[in-house]
Amino acid sequence: MLLKTNAAALCLAASLSAVSAQTFQRLGTCPDLGCVLPPDQQDFLPGQEFDIRFEVHAPKNGSEAYNNGVPDDKFTATISKDGKPAKSIADFFKQKGEPALEKWTFQWYEDLFAQDAKTPSVVNVASKAYRRVALYEPGDYTVTLNYYGGKKTVAKWTVRPLATKKKAKNVIFFIGDGMTTNMITAARLLAHKTVNGRYQSLLALDKFPVLGHQMTHSVDTFITDSANSASALYSGHKSSVNAMGVYADSSPDSEDDPKVETIVELLRRIWGSAWGAVSTAFIADATPTALTAHTRLRSKYTVVVDQVLNGVRNYTWTKTGGPDAYFGGGAEQFIAGSGSPGGKDFYAEFAKKGYSVSWNKTALLAAPNDQRALGIFCKSNFPVWLDRNVFTDNLATLKNDPSGADGPAKDLPGLKEMTLKAIDVLHTRGGKNGFFLMSEAASIDKQMHALDYDRALGDLLELDDTVRATIEKLKALKILDETLIVVSADHGHGFDVFGSSDTKYAAAQHDDRHKRNAVGVYQNSGLSQYTQPKEGVSYGTGANFPLNWDPRYVIAAGLGANPDHRELFGVGQKPRTPASVGADGSYYVNPSDRPNGFVVNGTLPTNEAQGVHSLTDVPVYAMGPCQDTFGGTYSNIDVFFKIAGCLGLGQPTNKTQTVDKPGHH
Amino acid sequence: MLLKTNAAALCLAASLSAVSAQTFQRLGTCPDLGCVLPPDQQDFLPGQEFDIRFEVHAPKNGSEAYNNGVPDDKFTATISKDGKPAKSIADFFKQKGEPALEKWTFQWYEDLFAQDAKTPSVVNVASKAYRRVALYEPGDYTVTLNYYGGKKTVAKWTVRPLATKKKAKNVIFFIGDGMTTNMITAARLLAHKTVNGRYQSLLALDKFPVLGHQMTHSVDTFITDSANSASALYSGHKSSVNAMGVYADSSPDSEDDPKVETIVELLRRIWGSAWGAVSTAFIADATPTALTAHTRLRSKYTVVVDQVLNGVRNYTWTKTGGPDAYFGGGAEQFIAGSGSPGGKDFYAEFAKKGYSVSWNKTALLAAPNDQRALGIFCKSNFPVWLDRNVFTDNLATLKNDPSGADGPAKDLPGLKEMTLKAIDVLHTRGGKNGFFLMSEAASIDKQMHALDYDRALGDLLELDDTVRATIEKLKALKILDETLIVVSADHGHGFDVFGSSDTKYAAAQHDDRHKRNAVGVYQNSGLSQYTQPKEGVSYGTGANFPLNWDPRYVIAAGLGANPDHRELFGVGQKPRTPASVGADGSYYVNPSDRPNGFVVNGTLPTNEAQGVHSLTDVPVYAMGPCQDTFGGTYSNIDVFFKIAGCLGLGQPTNKTQTVDKPGHH
Repeated sequence: MLLKTNAAALCLAASLSAVSAQTFQRLGTCPDLGCVLPPDQQDFLPGQEFDIRFEVHAPKNGSEAYNNGVPDDKFTATISKDGKPAKSIADFFKQKGEPALEKWTFQWYEDLFAQDAKTPSVVNVASKAYRRVALYEPGDYTVTLNYYGGKKTVAKWTVRPLATKKKAKNVIFFIGDGMTTNMITAARLLAHKTVNGRYQSLLALDKFPVLGHQMTHSVDTFITDSANSASALYSGHKSSVNAMGVYADSSPDSEDDPKVETIVELLRRIWGSAWGAVSTAFIADATPTALTAHTRLRSKYTVVVDQVLNGVRNYTWTKTGGPDAYFGGGAEQFIAGSGSPGGKDFYAEFAKKGYSVSWNKTALLAAPNDQRALGIFCKSNFPVWLDRNVFTDNLATLKNDPSGADGPAKDLPGLKEMTLKAIDVLHTRGGKNGFFLMSEAASIDKQMHALDYDRALGDLLELDDTVRATIEKLKALKILDETLIVVSADHGHGFDVFGSSDTKYAAAQHDDRHKRNAVGVYQNSGLSQYTQPKEGVSYGTGANFPLNWDPRYVIAAGLGANPDHRELFGVGQKPRTPASVGADGSYYVNPSDRPNGFVVNGTLPTNEAQGVHSLTDVPVYAMGPCQDTFGGTYSNIDVFFKIAGCLGLGQPTNKTQTVDKPGHH
Repeated sequence: MLLKTNAAALCLAASLSAVSAQTFQRLGTCPDLGCVLPPDQQDFLPGQEFDIRFEVHAPKNGSEAYNNGVPDDKFTATISKDGKPAKSIADFFKQKGEPALEKWTFQWYEDLFAQDAKTPSVVNVASKAYRRVALYEPGDYTVTLNYYGGKKTVAKWTVRPLATKKKAKNVIFFIGDGMTTNMITAARLLAHKTVNGRYQSLLALDKFPVLGHQMTHSVDTFITDSANSASALYSGHKSSVNAMGVYADSSPDSEDDPKVETIVELLRRIWGSAWGAVSTAFIADATPTALTAHTRLRSKYTVVVDQVLNGVRNYTWTKTGGPDAYFGGGAEQFIAGSGSPGGKDFYAEFAKKGYSVSWNKTALLAAPNDQRALGIFCKSNFPVWLDRNVFTDNLATLKNDPSGADGPAKDLPGLKEMTLKAIDVLHTRGGKNGFFLMSEAASIDKQMHALDYDRALGDLLELDDTVRATIEKLKALKILDETLIVVSADHGHGFDVFGSSDTKYAAAQHDDRHKRNAVGVYQNSGLSQYTQPKEGVSYGTGANFPLNWDPRYVIAAGLGANPDHRELFGVGQKPRTPASVGADGSYYVNPSDRPNGFVVNGTLPTNEAQGVHSLTDVPVYAMGPCQDTFGGTYSNIDVFFKIAGCLGLGQPTNKTQTVDKPGHH
């Protein structure tokens, strides 16, 4: 039985929005009881394939209870362009009839009180999904969902202008995960010397001609994660935390959410270019896999790794045929067993498809450039640059050999070696079609989560060194002028340096308040001692890294968002775990971490062990073809549209290269 | 008795630098015992007038003890250009003989241990200062100080290229004091609504075509203050914390340090343009007065305010003749008494020189545009935008009437009214010579110091609204195309938003750890409720400000650098004092501030009552003539060189307009 449309029903819609934008949301993109995905206000690349899903919600209880929890399964939906007549979805997209009606139930907590009391709100849903459509004509579109006998949910979509010419032959997109301007400033301080305020050398990033800022928020929350922010950068479509390559629906199935085509799917389909990804994360992590993944849950590692090689299995969807180069950590998803897709030896699965497989730097450098290449160099994340290059004793105790053998991974490449080799492979295999490469410094973020500022900044310096070496390599290959290089982040952490700390003075103090007095602020911050040579100290890491990671006077830095922890300032000899679980299951100061430091009470919920992501816009650096389009302030989705525009991916037809091309097997 | 030059003496020089770059420094720009000011590695505008000072240090005790504390008073100094023969300073600059030899003594603590033990190191000094010189030929110069029979200190100076053409008729330089990209992102979140990730409106800053980053560090420390960073922006010369318009020397006299010409001194001298400053600070504060001040100590308020009107008194130096418009707070320096220069009625001093004097908005708006205008609207800093517009009850208890009468200042203008009126006056009086205006939102910084994030962001939104209104006004005056608009900051604070807090849930908790669980991070951050209309709440502040400053779900934000404080998240009805002095004289949680909040132990020294400045590079927004020169990453001194270049201030001669021009009295 449906309620008749009346003013009360419309007023209900208004009060619903008061419930929906909080700690928890029924479905973030759906303040009404009728949901359109992709939702209102989204932008599309012409020709970009995507799915559509409609949902009608009938909350059974709670503040939005409606129609006794019976959803309207006779809903209809139309689409019109620019004031032209509306057509049904199936007609407009020339689908073979209506898709099947789906039904499910989900529940959510309306706020923290309800969560504490364990009183969820239950919602029954009726839904339909229209798969693999595309819009080819630029302009404005209106999608209208009609339900509950008179209610409407309207979504305005904009298809951006055509961009059919490939202006950049190659694109290299560097991502410093979690990297902010504040961190870049600190890394410069550690590695580059000033004389009376003048930097004697600069970061590679400092030399980029064009600078912009991008807004990182997700489609439904103002703080994001690496999964959906990567999707925004790679597809022009924001999503929800933990989702990749889809708009999050409310169904229990994490693999049925409506998908959007990504940049490498488009690039391969349209131009047949080569593509690759490099990361210092476990390779099933979000930033690399978001190039090809379509899932509500980034943690479905076997699914997303399988999708890298084999594409989406449960629906007809663009298949890239696999990457030309794919280097990182995360051997768990390749060693036969519970972590790998189907339990198979996934190294062998790649090898069957013609890949060389490398487990160490020696093998990587020797791999043929004309053959597709997989390189997995350790289990889990790479050890960070600081442990690989300075505190090398920390490597010996790891049990991360990528073959599955006991013991540590040996002969690890760095981000630089992996990136330079990927360029060799992609340049060779891309031929006249060029290539797209994503290279990620993953542990800037991971170490900021751990409040290990030195390890995070070491990885940022490794990224900068990789960018520098990449520019040199492109010059040597004579392809610098035809390569668009973009460096950015996915989101930030609230880090900054606020002074220096005299570690000798701090060590001589006996109580917390006096230890804090070791910090010098304003004029007492002094100069960077990381760039002062110290007798007997030499890391062999070169001119663009600190000469001394452990001077007497260190940076005093921190975040606004913390778990309980002790702070001592100064590099830790071992990776950091700032908080540990107490008897009540929540997190307290880890007694083993910086035991001589002063206690800092946290500002985060007590179930958070680490720091968290922050709101800030992040920098975008660009050089090469189309560089000028990257200046100013814009959203993360615009990074995709700028790159896609430069690659000529905005096509008026379903332009598709044949997959079976020589050199692409 | 001089030590002979030997390898040991040279090695001593090397070890001295190990002492000098720490919590305290003997003289930051002088790692050797011979000091050249301006020091090594500085840049100059051609024709920019400056002073030179040489010092020879003889430490009497401590780790650098030398020559029994007897400084070499027979030192000599030379300068050469580009490999041409060196000349003595007096010859090169055609001075009338050698300046007088000066001698003094100072002391400093080599580290915190010495400070605790009260064992200073004493230094005897011999010095000479050469006044009011200039370099007119672009290129590289070498200054050599010879002392102690064979020691040398060498300073390399670079005079930048000529820039003789005025490309912008007018320049408006907005400074958000302490404003970072992270804060701009948060302000956008508060005032502008998103629908499914798309902002429905944007900040004025978001629309600037060109974006850059500037490095804020001072000449001798990596954390700066507003004084010397303003000097860097206004003169192209970094300085030391607390110093303005000079390089800090070691003499006890704060008014004898070697000076550098500022942008308004150059502009008035070369083109006779109009100039003005507007600030929401007390007008003797650093950011406005650094346009004309030359002093080692920003806190000499009577000196710096006198210099605004009368220029430097104790030396021959460029006089601007006074500003054409000067609006702000700080009536203490104008009311006859201990706060004003010479104890005089400084309103009357301005009036004698032909200024209109305004004490409130009504008078300001009625002031004639063709007459020089002074406007002082309150004592101390302006009340912040949030108290002027939302929590207006807070104004009634203030005793800040600018006339000196008891009671509150009434009819306060805002930054917008002051800026728009200044444009009217400067545009009228500047005529064909155009104008330079600096407009400062001072309390972004001041409120971040107080950990009052809402009040800081309110002032940031006021700045953005002022920028928006300024662009509209320039369009209406038909002078937008000939005006370079630059918006930047002087330095940052380590602020970011990391989630939202459910204030209702927090209020229902009874202990600190549970209160923290009100914070939602990542996907639980939700959406901005500040942009949701609330029944019964209407501030009348317009479309570019929050609709509700006090929603149930507020931003959870903070800094890495804190005194002890309580955190509750959510706007305070009254301005904030987070820490207060305890019985031992150090700072503790203020029991009156957010008594229901959870305690956060500080990370700063316990004698710090507030937050402090941070390291981060800050954004630069530019539009108008020369805008493209502002992209990329550079130092704060480069902001000066870009603006000065655009104004044609790099002259090959001592180009000087006559001061007595019609309209300039």
